[in-house]
Amino acid sequence: MRVLVTGADGFVGGALVHALRVGHEVVATDRNDGDIADPAHLDRLFAAGPFDRVFHLAAIVSGAAEADFDAGRRVNLDATIGLLDHCRAQARRGGPVVRLVHTSSIAVFGTPLPARIDDATEAKPSLSYGTHKRVAELLIDDATRRGELDGRALRLSGVVVRPALLNGALSAFNSDVIREPLAGRDYECPVGAAATIWVTSRRAAVANLLHLAALDGAAIGAQRALTAPALALSIADIVAALGRFDGGAPTRVRYAPRPAIEAQFGRWPLDCSFARAEALGLVGEASIDALIRDHRETTA
Amino acid sequence: MRVLVTGADGFVGGALVHALRVGHEVVATDRNDGDIADPAHLDRLFAAGPFDRVFHLAAIVSGAAEADFDAGRRVNLDATIGLLDHCRAQARRGGPVVRLVHTSSIAVFGTPLPARIDDATEAKPSLSYGTHKRVAELLIDDATRRGELDGRALRLSGVVVRPALLNGALSAFNSDVIREPLAGRDYECPVGAAATIWVTSRRAAVANLLHLAALDGAAIGAQRALTAPALALSIADIVAALGRFDGGAPTRVRYAPRPAIEAQFGRWPLDCSFARAEALGLVGEASIDALIRDHRETTA
Repeated sequence: MRVLVTGADGFVGGALVHALRVGHEVVATDRNDGDIADPAHLDRLFAAGPFDRVFHLAAIVSGAAEADFDAGRRVNLDATIGLLDHCRAQARRGGPVVRLVHTSSIAVFGTPLPARIDDATEAKPSLSYGTHKRVAELLIDDATRRGELDGRALRLSGVVVRPALLNGALSAFNSDVIREPLAGRDYECPVGAAATIWVTSRRAAVANLLHLAALDGAAIGAQRALTAPALALSIADIVAALGRFDGGAPTRVRYAPRPAIEAQFGRWPLDCSFARAEALGLVGEASIDALIRDHRETTA
Repeated sequence: MRVLVTGADGFVGGALVHALRVGHEVVATDRNDGDIADPAHLDRLFAAGPFDRVFHLAAIVSGAAEADFDAGRRVNLDATIGLLDHCRAQARRGGPVVRLVHTSSIAVFGTPLPARIDDATEAKPSLSYGTHKRVAELLIDDATRRGELDGRALRLSGVVVRPALLNGALSAFNSDVIREPLAGRDYECPVGAAATIWVTSRRAAVANLLHLAALDGAAIGAQRALTAPALALSIADIVAALGRFDGGAPTRVRYAPRPAIEAQFGRWPLDCSFARAEALGLVGEASIDALIRDHRETTA
């Protein structure tokens, strides 16, 4: 099976490519290889042979897309439309109907966030990043309905624990607050202890992307976007968990809440359900302790 | 005030241009004047001077957009994105922030339709037409939030009574079932007497587009799409009303239901609310009798 992975140099993309290299012919593309928003680059990729599956991970994340709208729109909207067009064209030429897995985001739910989020919650994005992710979901559903694509979209929450690389995500604190204190460094947290976030692990994200690609489309239904199971918890919960691995870690956290960051990223409801995804076999970490343990084992 | 109207040769567009010509400098464009999906045509329109307001009515309607996806996508998606880009560019050049009124559609609600539709009902389109309308709403909300546009979107139901022109709308029966029997002609209806539809009149549509353009943006809020008040009623209700104007009209209706048409266009819930639009001053016909009376007066 020929598989294309975009955003292959990312935190999740790299791990996904690694997992796919067993048993598949993987074409991995990222910014070093070419501009995903350049139709000529997509032409080259698809000219080398038809793809059976595409994992579309390339994205400009929330903060960077807010700071530079044109850059975000180019990758998050234009490139995604271009990629769908290339999949569609392959099907029209008589090639395989691409099974495409799109990395969407819980950013499709905008602020003010409701008191509960479940499978009935409407997507009302409040940032350009979330807007473009929701647009992609709609276009994927429509192309799938028309039979020119077999699309799926996975709404990921914050995938942690990322390395200390500035990729522009305004929600980077969700990784920093775990990694920095455990590494013995002081950390100034831009949201308060009572702030609530949704996170998942890289291993869960990769497992769910692979599982979603394996599912029968009919089992998913017409609405192809699924909210991935996430851990919903407060910063205080996370900091307390750090203390169970390193008694001194909680003392290294200082709070300097920034209201704009809290409002957009620190008000995720603890009352949530991922029933649809779970019924389809998608997984989440059992606890924040399990997530931290995995982080410590893979970075040891 | 300089005002651009796209789709100016349409049933609603023509009446809107007529109403706007008092007191405004109106630039009316339609397919005879240029291709709205051609960036060069938009360049020419915007180069002649900045626009204060834009009414975007150009569209390939539901049935035509299903039959020819590429044509629908070009006008309903690409041209709308191009128009938003031109408005954005005008604002970035220091020109006026365009107050844009987009004609959306109740087609943003897809099948199977819920038992009730109100302001809390999620848009889950099930045709390419409704998908592209919903995408436009999302992009308008985002551009408005960024301050590069002052957008509004009006979700119109079937605007009747249209002349017997084939514009490709699969829902054309909603006009035909009124016009044909009243004109003394037999009519074969593609949905049964129990089918339920949402309709509005041209005068209500024009009044609401103008009213929406006059509203203060802050009063509307961040979600700029409003579902216009519609009459929700069965075909039997309509045919009974015909009889109150012409006793013989109901006898000229014969039913030959087509399941696909009924499923997509004949299952609109009678349980509905347009509270948000009504609170902002948008109007609907008081009754089907009022709508038919208006039709008879304006075509007499």
